This record gives sequence, C-alpha cells and structure tokens, in this order.
Amino acid sequence: MTTERFQRRIPEGEDRERLICGDCGFVAYENPKIVVGSVVSEGGRVLLCRRAINPRRGFWTLPAGYMELGETVEEGARREAWEEARVKLALEGILAVYSIARIGQVQVIFRAGLAEPGHEPGPESLETRFFEWGDIPWDEIAFPSVHWALKAWREGGTGIAGNPPEDRRGMAGL
Amino acid sequence: MTTERFQRRIPEGEDRERLICGDCGFVAYENPKIVVGSVVSEGGRVLLCRRAINPRRGFWTLPAGYMELGETVEEGARREAWEEARVKLALEGILAVYSIARIGQVQVIFRAGLAEPGHEPGPESLETRFFEWGDIPWDEIAFPSVHWALKAWREGGTGIAGNPPEDRRGMAGL
Ligand SMILES: [Zn+2]
Ligand SMILES: [Zn+2]
Repeated sequence: MTTERFQRRIPEGEDRERLICGDCGFVAYENPKIVVGSVVSEGGRVLLCRRAINPRRGFWTLPAGYMELGETVEEGARREAWEEARVKLALEGILAVYSIARIGQVQVIFRAGLAEPGHEPGPESLETRFFEWGDIPWDEIAFPSVHWALKAWREGGTGIAGNPPEDRRGMAGL
Repeated sequence: MTTERFQRRIPEGEDRERLICGDCGFVAYENPKIVVGSVVSEGGRVLLCRRAINPRRGFWTLPAGYMELGETVEEGARREAWEEARVKLALEGILAVYSIARIGQVQVIFRAGLAEPGHEPGPESLETRFFEWGDIPWDEIAFPSVHWALKAWREGGTGIAGNPPEDRRGMAGL
C-alpha cells in the first residue's frame, strides 16, 4: 500500500482531519474496522487457534477476523471460523461487543457451537484445539480481548459483555 | 471525493477485488462501516429526530451516525446523541446489532436514558421530540432499522436483538 502521497488535512465542509491523496484528492476515510469472531464451545471445552501469522504468531486466539463488505456479522463470523479452523458454526447469539479504540476496532463476538463435527487448521493457523477451561494456556493468549471473551463466556449470563472496567476504551497494548 | 482514477482489481497476494488508485496504487479498502445510535427513553416515551439532511430529509430517525476512529461504541453513541439532539445520554447497554449488508453497515444500537434533562435539534435535525408509543409516526420513519430498534425496545427482554426474520441480511431498500 502506497501512502507517501497522502497528507492529513481537513476537507472542505468537514470538521476533522482526513488522509487525502496529494495527487488525486482522494479522501481515504479512516473508519473503525469490525472484527467478527466466536467463542466456540463443545461439551464445556472452547476452541482456540494457534496463529500462523503475525502479529502474535504462535499464540492462541479465537477464530476471528475482519468483516468483509457485503456480508452480515453472522456470515462474517461463520466465514472466519471456516477460514481459520475449518469448523461449521451454529451461532447462538452475541456474547460481547468490544471497542479497541487504540487501533480503531470494534469486535463483535458470538457464542457458538458446532453445526458439524470436526476442526483443523486453515492457512492462518498452526493448530486448532478444544481446551478444557483449566487447560487454557493463559500465558500464550494472543490478545487482551481473547481473555475478555473467554471470561465473559465462562461467566455465562444473558446480557452482552462490553470492555472490562480496567480497560473501558481498549487502550492496552500487547 | 475524486474516484475516477480508481479501478477494481485484485492486489498482489490477496484473493478479492479492491478499489485501487490508477495513479498512485493506493488500495482503498472498502470496509463495512459502523453506525452507533440509541433508543433514548424517558417515562415510557422515546426520542426521535426529524432529519434536516438527505437521505430521508423530513423523516424521523434515532440519534445515530457513523462511529469515528479513536472512540469506543459508547463514546460514539453519546457523541451522536449530542450532535443530533443535544441530549446527554445515560447508556444502559446494547439493545441490538443490525447488519445492513446492502450498504455495508453494522449498526450498534444502545438503550439509553437521559443523564441530564433537555433536548433540542442539532445542525442535522429539524426537530427533536419524545413520542408516546401510540404517537410514533410510523409512516414517516426514515429507515427500516429504526422500526426494528423501536420494536426491539418495546419488546424489552434481556437478550440482544438482531435483524428480523424478514430481512436477515439487511437488503431492504427504502
Ligand atoms: Zn490517487
Ligand atoms: Zn493517490
């Protein structure tokens, strides 16, 4: 991605700085991005994927990724679970919505089960595994929001979780 | 916004068409955008704003708008309520998450009350008013998702609403 020609200035009729191409005037609106993912459980165990890519290669994460244009949040969550862990999801509803203001992300995390048995690593995973709660490798979890979602899942409840009190805006780094 | 120089093609190492600047090679990732809004209630009545801008000028909507980079969903919902209706929100949790796949939107809608009394039109509203349920002008509602959110609010319940069965993907036009 070439961004050298881009400058920050306020477009006519607006009140905020945007990234604007000095060559052609294209305004690259930098919007927050949506991550869709799932806590997939089966018999009390939860599915984690060991990342084959950076950031955090080798660490464990939920099946999750950027939502694409033209899909729903549910379709995005199912697509990501297939891409990363070759699982077919049965979605059960939204578990949590997290804001990671530091990097401009909103994460929509579903509760899910398996619509069909089976899982295996997709191209972005080294390994996929269902963990008993007591076996989750907490020191090898890729991102803070994976901790948050696993804990929200474990606590159960019918409401929807948000950022935890200690990081209301999603500013913690890795 | 100048987009004439942009072409659709698949960037190296990717598997999807993207919008790419023919001059400078900038890849304009077209991501779904996040709308944050609220059903604001006070004594059983709900707040609606009559739109001063297109699309749907003159029609009634919820205080809602595009989330900005660097804020949380909660901050975005509070900012939009202030911009459109000069209300200070007391957020009560997420009411609904809607996907509008037709236009690449995800809407995160909160339940809210007033943290301070008072409301008046901001620059993008002609009028702001609290309606009794029976007085809501259903034929003058701006968007289908405003209907959905009002009905989800009225039904109560502790879970989070999604798209209604008749429009699971958010494909209905105006
Ligand atoms: Zn250009
Ligand atoms: Zn350019």
